[in-house]
Amino acid sequence: MASAETPKLWNFSAGPAILPPVVFERAAEAVRELRADGHAATAPGVGLSILEISHRSKPYEAVTFGAEQLCHDVLGIPETHQVLFLQGGASLQFAMLAMNLREAGKPAAYIDTGVWSQKAIAESQGLGETTVIASSAASNYDRIPAFPPAEAYANASYLHITTNNTIFGTEYAEIPEAAGGVPLVIDFSSHAGSRPMALERAAFGYAGAQKNLGPSGVTLVYIRKDLLNKKPAAHVPVVLRYATHAKEPSLYNTPNTFGVLVLKLVLEWMRDQGGMPAIAAVNERKAGQLYATLDRSQVFRAHAQPGSRSRMNVTWTANGAPEAEREALSSRFLKEAQKAGFDGLKGHRLVGGFRASIYNAFPEAGVAALCEFMAEFERRL
Amino acid sequence: MASAETPKLWNFSAGPAILPPVVFERAAEAVRELRADGHAATAPGVGLSILEISHRSKPYEAVTFGAEQLCHDVLGIPETHQVLFLQGGASLQFAMLAMNLREAGKPAAYIDTGVWSQKAIAESQGLGETTVIASSAASNYDRIPAFPPAEAYANASYLHITTNNTIFGTEYAEIPEAAGGVPLVIDFSSHAGSRPMALERAAFGYAGAQKNLGPSGVTLVYIRKDLLNKKPAAHVPVVLRYATHAKEPSLYNTPNTFGVLVLKLVLEWMRDQGGMPAIAAVNERKAGQLYATLDRSQVFRAHAQPGSRSRMNVTWTANGAPEAEREALSSRFLKEAQKAGFDGLKGHRLVGGFRASIYNAFPEAGVAALCEFMAEFERRL
Repeated sequence: MASAETPKLWNFSAGPAILPPVVFERAAEAVRELRADGHAATAPGVGLSILEISHRSKPYEAVTFGAEQLCHDVLGIPETHQVLFLQGGASLQFAMLAMNLREAGKPAAYIDTGVWSQKAIAESQGLGETTVIASSAASNYDRIPAFPPAEAYANASYLHITTNNTIFGTEYAEIPEAAGGVPLVIDFSSHAGSRPMALERAAFGYAGAQKNLGPSGVTLVYIRKDLLNKKPAAHVPVVLRYATHAKEPSLYNTPNTFGVLVLKLVLEWMRDQGGMPAIAAVNERKAGQLYATLDRSQVFRAHAQPGSRSRMNVTWTANGAPEAEREALSSRFLKEAQKAGFDGLKGHRLVGGFRASIYNAFPEAGVAALCEFMAEFERRL
Repeated sequence: MASAETPKLWNFSAGPAILPPVVFERAAEAVRELRADGHAATAPGVGLSILEISHRSKPYEAVTFGAEQLCHDVLGIPETHQVLFLQGGASLQFAMLAMNLREAGKPAAYIDTGVWSQKAIAESQGLGETTVIASSAASNYDRIPAFPPAEAYANASYLHITTNNTIFGTEYAEIPEAAGGVPLVIDFSSHAGSRPMALERAAFGYAGAQKNLGPSGVTLVYIRKDLLNKKPAAHVPVVLRYATHAKEPSLYNTPNTFGVLVLKLVLEWMRDQGGMPAIAAVNERKAGQLYATLDRSQVFRAHAQPGSRSRMNVTWTANGAPEAEREALSSRFLKEAQKAGFDGLKGHRLVGGFRASIYNAFPEAGVAALCEFMAEFERRL
C-alpha cells in the first residue's frame, strides 16, 4: 500500500484498483479482529477475525446490512430497488441478467460501446434473440453513440448499456431514460460511486466492486423489486435467480464476507469525504487536468471524443508520426514512466498507447505528477 | 482472531471457520503490502496492497499459480486434473456441474446424504433427468449409505456424492471408486485438506474454501482434463463453462484475488505442518477425543453412527429423557458453554442439539477444554 503523500508507486491499474489508505488500514485490522457493529471504529473487538466469523452471526449481519444501507444512502440507490452482494463479477451478471430478465417472445436490446458490452451481448445471444440497436464500433469506440429512438427497442425485454468503458475510456455523461417502460439495465462497474447518478432510471444495475467500491470478488447488484416476481422465460437454476438472493438478502449462501466488509469501509470513506458531490468534484478536477494536458500535447492524443470522455479511465495514444516511430515513442514513454513510479499505464491492446485509471482513491497529487511527467517527457523529445 | 493459547473465544463455527494464526497475520500484512513471489516470507514488498494489485500483474500470477501448484503438492490433486479457483461457493457448483457434465440421454445419479446433497440434486432436477440411487434419509442422515452396485448408475452422466456433511456430521471413510468409467463427482467442501484422500478417483471435485482452505468467496474446483473437451448437452453461458476458466487458468475474469492469496497461505501452513499425514493425525486425535467423550456420556449422544462419523463436524444431542426436559438441558448447556467461551456450538435445526466443527486450524487444546467442560457439566446435573 502506498501512503497518500509519498507512494512507492502511483497505481493506475484498471482494476483491482487503488483504495483509500484508511480502508487498507481498517481492513488489515479486521483480518486480525473484527469489531462489533460491523467494524465500527469505536466498537470493541468481537474476538474473531472477519475471515473466520460465521456469516450467520450478529457481527456479520451488521456488516452486510450496514453496507446495504450505505448503498442507498451514499450511492443513491433508491429504496424501490433491492441491493444484493453477489459473487462472480460483472462477467457472471452478463449471463445471469440475460437468464432472469428475458421475457418470452421479446428480444433483448443492447447498445455496443466496446469489449464489455460485447461480452454481455454474447451471453445474451447464446440464450435468445438479441438486437444491437446502436454501436460506435466504426470509430473504434471513441464515443458513446447517440441514444436510439424509442422505436428501436419498443418491444425489448430490456435495454442494456455499459455506462463506463474501461478499455476505450468512454462514459455516458448521464444515465439515459428508456422510453415506454422498457427496463433499462446498466453495467456501471467502472464508475459506480464516482459521482451523483440517476440510478433510479435503471430497473437493474450491476458493478464489479474492484474499481471504486472495494476488492475483487464482490458484485454489487440492484434490482427494482417488482422484477423479482417476474418468471423468467426459461428454467434458471436456483442459485442464479435474483429472487433467491433477495429472499435472504445476500445470505442465501456464504457470501464473500471479507469483500463485503471492505465494500462497507469504502462506502463509509465516501460518506466521510462528503458523499457523491464531493467525490465528483475531485474526480472532475483530476480528469480535467489530464484531458487538458492531452489536448495541449503535440505528441499525445486522447482517444475518447469530448462529450464521451470517461472521468475514470483516460486513454490516449502517441500522435501523428509514422507507426514505427509511434511505437518506439510509446515504448520509451512506458519504460520511463514505470521507472519514475507510474505503474499500470499500458493501454489495452485494442486501443494501444496508454490508459490512466484514476478511480476515486487515486490521489490528485498523482495526476499532477503524471501531467508534469508527460510535459517534461515532451520537452525532452 | 484468537491466539492459539488463550483465545477469547473457541470458534466452533461450521464455516466461515477458524484459520491458523499465522495465516491471519500474513493476510493482514498483505492487505498493507503484498510481497514479491506471491507473498513469500522473505521477499521484498511490491509497493501495493493485495487489494489493489492487478490480477494480470506478475506478483499476482505468483499468487495464483503458486496456490495452484500447492493444491497438487499438498492436497494431492493429480496432475491429470486442472485446478481452478472460482467464485460463488459450492452452491454455484451445484448448478454449474449439472450444466457442464450432463450428457445427452444419460441421467445424472446422486447419493443423498442430507441438505447439501439435496441442494445439488435440486439443481440437477431443474436441468434434466436425475436419479437418487441411495439415501440415508430414513435414519435422519446419521450414516453414509452403502455404496450402490454398478448397475444402479451404469448409464449415468456422472455419479455425485457429498463426501462430508456438515449438518449431520457424517463423512465417507474413503472416497469410493465408481465402476464402468462413470465420472465420480465429489463435493468435498467441508473436509478438503483434512487428511490424505484418493482425489484421483473423482473426475471432478469442488470445495467452498471457507472451511479448511481459506476465507469465503473462493471455490476450489478440479477437473480431469479430458472433461474440458466434452460438449455439454445444452447451451451453457460462456462464464459458466469450465473450459472457459481452464483456458486462462482462473484468470478469465477478475478472481477473488485476496481469497486466492489466503488460500495459498493456508496451503503453505499445511505443508509446513507436515502435509496431509501430519494434519490427519491431529484431526484424528481431536475427533477421537470428542467422540470418546460422547460415547461415555449418560447425557449426550453422538448423532452419526460409527463408520460414518465426520472428523470435521461432530454432531450430538441430549439423550434419553422426555422432549421438554431434553430441550431445557440443551438450552442450559448452550448458554453455559457460550459463557465459558465456546462459540458456535448450536446444532442445525434439522438435527437439533449441538455441533462442534473442528477444522484443521481448531486447536487440540480447544477440544480438550470442551470435553472437560462437557464432563464437568454432566457431573453438575
